[in-house]
Amino acid sequence: MPARPAPGSLLGIEPLDIQDINGMLDAAYRMQKRRPRPLFKEKRVALLFYESSTRTRVSFEYAAKILGATTTLVSATASSIEKGESLIDTGYTLTALGAQAIIIRHPSSGAPHLLSRYVDVPVINAGDGLHEHPSQALLDAYTILRHKKSLKGLRVALIGDIFHSRVARSDVHLLSKAGALVTLCGPDALVPEVATTLAKGVAVTRDLKEAITGADVVIALRIQKERLAGLQLSLDDYISRYQLTAERVRWAKKDAIVMHPGPIIRGLELTADVADAERTVIVEQVKNGVAVRMAILARALGVKH
Amino acid sequence: MPARPAPGSLLGIEPLDIQDINGMLDAAYRMQKRRPRPLFKEKRVALLFYESSTRTRVSFEYAAKILGATTTLVSATASSIEKGESLIDTGYTLTALGAQAIIIRHPSSGAPHLLSRYVDVPVINAGDGLHEHPSQALLDAYTILRHKKSLKGLRVALIGDIFHSRVARSDVHLLSKAGALVTLCGPDALVPEVATTLAKGVAVTRDLKEAITGADVVIALRIQKERLAGLQLSLDDYISRYQLTAERVRWAKKDAIVMHPGPIIRGLELTADVADAERTVIVEQVKNGVAVRMAILARALGVKH
Amino acid sequence: MPARPAPGSLLGIEPLDIQDINGMLDAAYRMQKRRPRPLFKEKRVALLFYESSTRTRVSFEYAAKILGATTTLVSATASSIEKGESLIDTGYTLTALGAQAIIIRHPSSGAPHLLSRYVDVPVINAGDGLHEHPSQALLDAYTILRHKKSLKGLRVALIGDIFHSRVARSDVHLLSKAGALVTLCGPDALVPEVATTLAKGVAVTRDLKEAITGADVVIALRIQKERLAGLQLSLDDYISRYQLTAERVRWAKKDAIVMHPGPIIRGLELTADVADAERTVIVEQVKNGVAVRMAILARALGVKH
Repeated sequence: MPARPAPGSLLGIEPLDIQDINGMLDAAYRMQKRRPRPLFKEKRVALLFYESSTRTRVSFEYAAKILGATTTLVSATASSIEKGESLIDTGYTLTALGAQAIIIRHPSSGAPHLLSRYVDVPVINAGDGLHEHPSQALLDAYTILRHKKSLKGLRVALIGDIFHSRVARSDVHLLSKAGALVTLCGPDALVPEVATTLAKGVAVTRDLKEAITGADVVIALRIQKERLAGLQLSLDDYISRYQLTAERVRWAKKDAIVMHPGPIIRGLELTADVADAERTVIVEQVKNGVAVRMAILARALGVKH
Repeated sequence: MPARPAPGSLLGIEPLDIQDINGMLDAAYRMQKRRPRPLFKEKRVALLFYESSTRTRVSFEYAAKILGATTTLVSATASSIEKGESLIDTGYTLTALGAQAIIIRHPSSGAPHLLSRYVDVPVINAGDGLHEHPSQALLDAYTILRHKKSLKGLRVALIGDIFHSRVARSDVHLLSKAGALVTLCGPDALVPEVATTLAKGVAVTRDLKEAITGADVVIALRIQKERLAGLQLSLDDYISRYQLTAERVRWAKKDAIVMHPGPIIRGLELTADVADAERTVIVEQVKNGVAVRMAILARALGVKH
Repeated sequence: MPARPAPGSLLGIEPLDIQDINGMLDAAYRMQKRRPRPLFKEKRVALLFYESSTRTRVSFEYAAKILGATTTLVSATASSIEKGESLIDTGYTLTALGAQAIIIRHPSSGAPHLLSRYVDVPVINAGDGLHEHPSQALLDAYTILRHKKSLKGLRVALIGDIFHSRVARSDVHLLSKAGALVTLCGPDALVPEVATTLAKGVAVTRDLKEAITGADVVIALRIQKERLAGLQLSLDDYISRYQLTAERVRWAKKDAIVMHPGPIIRGLELTADVADAERTVIVEQVKNGVAVRMAILARALGVKH
């Protein structure tokens, strides 16, 4: 069994260097500009989803199929996972079946890393527990770069549930590596002080106005109602202090953009008018996700393009 | 956001004119006669199913795949729908992911209409609540036309649960527009008197013999046991008065055909010998569904053929 | 309706003659050696799964897709099966939709046979109740033949839950037809004495050492914990008497191979070191499954290759 992940694996943003990140962002740009060709012909990709997903799953699936790969979806229901088969044995099975890359979403942090130490094909982390969601961070960076010249020196505010967000963790690592200045904002329970140690250039504030003022990019994160309840934080309180409203968004720079990894709940993290505002690029993020995931898959499958 | 449905949308039969209906029926006929070609190459179609389905889902999926489209299925379980994402935001996501048509089945009447006011790609209603099921009505008309010269003046009896049937509603609109004479038949609770106002040329009777006598086409509808219970109607009563038996079917014209949108329950809406009789064209309906849905998709995707 | 299964059906190993079996094994070998071609272009295959499955479902799906077929998956959830549609009517629907072969997994023994008497396309049994799992037996034989010259005279030990295993039943029939000597081993409750009458050349023993000593092939079967409980057999007892450990496997011939149909539970039927040992060919079995299922599908679809 291999002790290290196969080349082309994407387990998280933290272990990547900035050249590798830029390489994927450039590849995604070329992918998006060009008419799709059957680059992945005769390639087989497995999607192994232990958690539900629409945009990430469909996005990877389209990215693979459009370029000609054969895909198969294995989800936690309706599979041998129900029968108690271990993650590692499911990995052996998928590679024995001919999968040349495994895209995995799992509720446990570190599951993709574990898998990658046992299979000899690239493993792509499509979200693991509270840990990382690297393809989302890449598409976020890609989307910012369609609106801003560079990530370097950019002021980015991340608002809301940082603590439970794998998107936040991956975004912070990527933005920090690229030289952006990141401010995390939310109540104590959702944004612990220790978050400043995540990466360099990261600050924490409880004050939304402070976080947003002067920002080039404002990223709202998904709030899970059941988590607020567990933290004895009232939804009304959260909304009154941290919801993105049209008025609050105006604290940011004039040309600032507003992002959200989705799925959004209108009236919770942001108001409907912010969701639909011109400077809000949530739909663009989803769109860019396909090109970014094509680039991730091309890197995993070792396909020149 | 668009205020009107994108051209090529198919939200129901009611708003269509007869030329548009005939156009789809003719296109389906050409589709069926001809060897499939990759007409939908590089097209992406999303199937968004909030309710379970075999024949409609598989039929649309085959219709799309056979002509070369890339399809993806999003169902209510195992997707962000579980996480509380709204229908509209799911629509934004799918179009951002590159879907060029969205086929939607939803338990709420009007859901496809709502969606079509927010996305800029054609929306195809694959059944919404108690409202319409237009592709079923088109395949029913198509199937009748394989056995009868014209729909004009044809006598059609619809038997059973009209009230809860989106198929009945779509059938009635289509048959009425085409000049057929429609008789609805069933107990009060399932066939309210007001049903005569659905469209012109529609009559209601409680008497099965009256409905069937002289009919060219007899269409049985699916009975949902749980609905009978809610209406305090006994299953035995229903069967004794309205089940299609070999004897009762003989009341119709000699060359009459018997139809059912499926899934059938033998021994409930119809006996097993009626289900398997030569004049019964239930399996033919399913078969024709693929060609009809190819025509619907070609219209939606703006593909010449 | 046809009274007999369509040619190319694969309902079980028991009714096959050895020439037919060898034909499929030879075809699988040719399939595996050769680069895949679009042999199944314009063919449509339906997968009808009333029970959960990873390896069998994905394996058939890949086998079909790699050779160019259009596939569709119908599972017991999210389909009309939920609405009470009978197996036979689901079969009519799938063939009407254009399926040219139906691959079925069903919890009831005999379900594929029933289906095959009503549809006019080949039916492939992907596991039915406690009855047969013919594609697994074929891939087991195929895998043995990659390591041994012939099945004739080979000594094969099957260990564990024979009684509840459709794999065991299919393996025994195939091995017996090919002239192997089969020993079944396990506690009374899981290996009834009457099992010797399954086929000729079959012996039963309660003693693991006796079963394994001199064996060329040792096949462990999956133990379902809930079944042991029902039989008032303790898990600890089973493990102490029948678990395959490194020490016990050494009782077999030096060049013996160890097999398991999967999914395995490490520490139950076999220890982790046996699972990962070089002589253990579990992953190879999965891999060979794709080629064997290509051969099964080619036979079903009447495709020369």
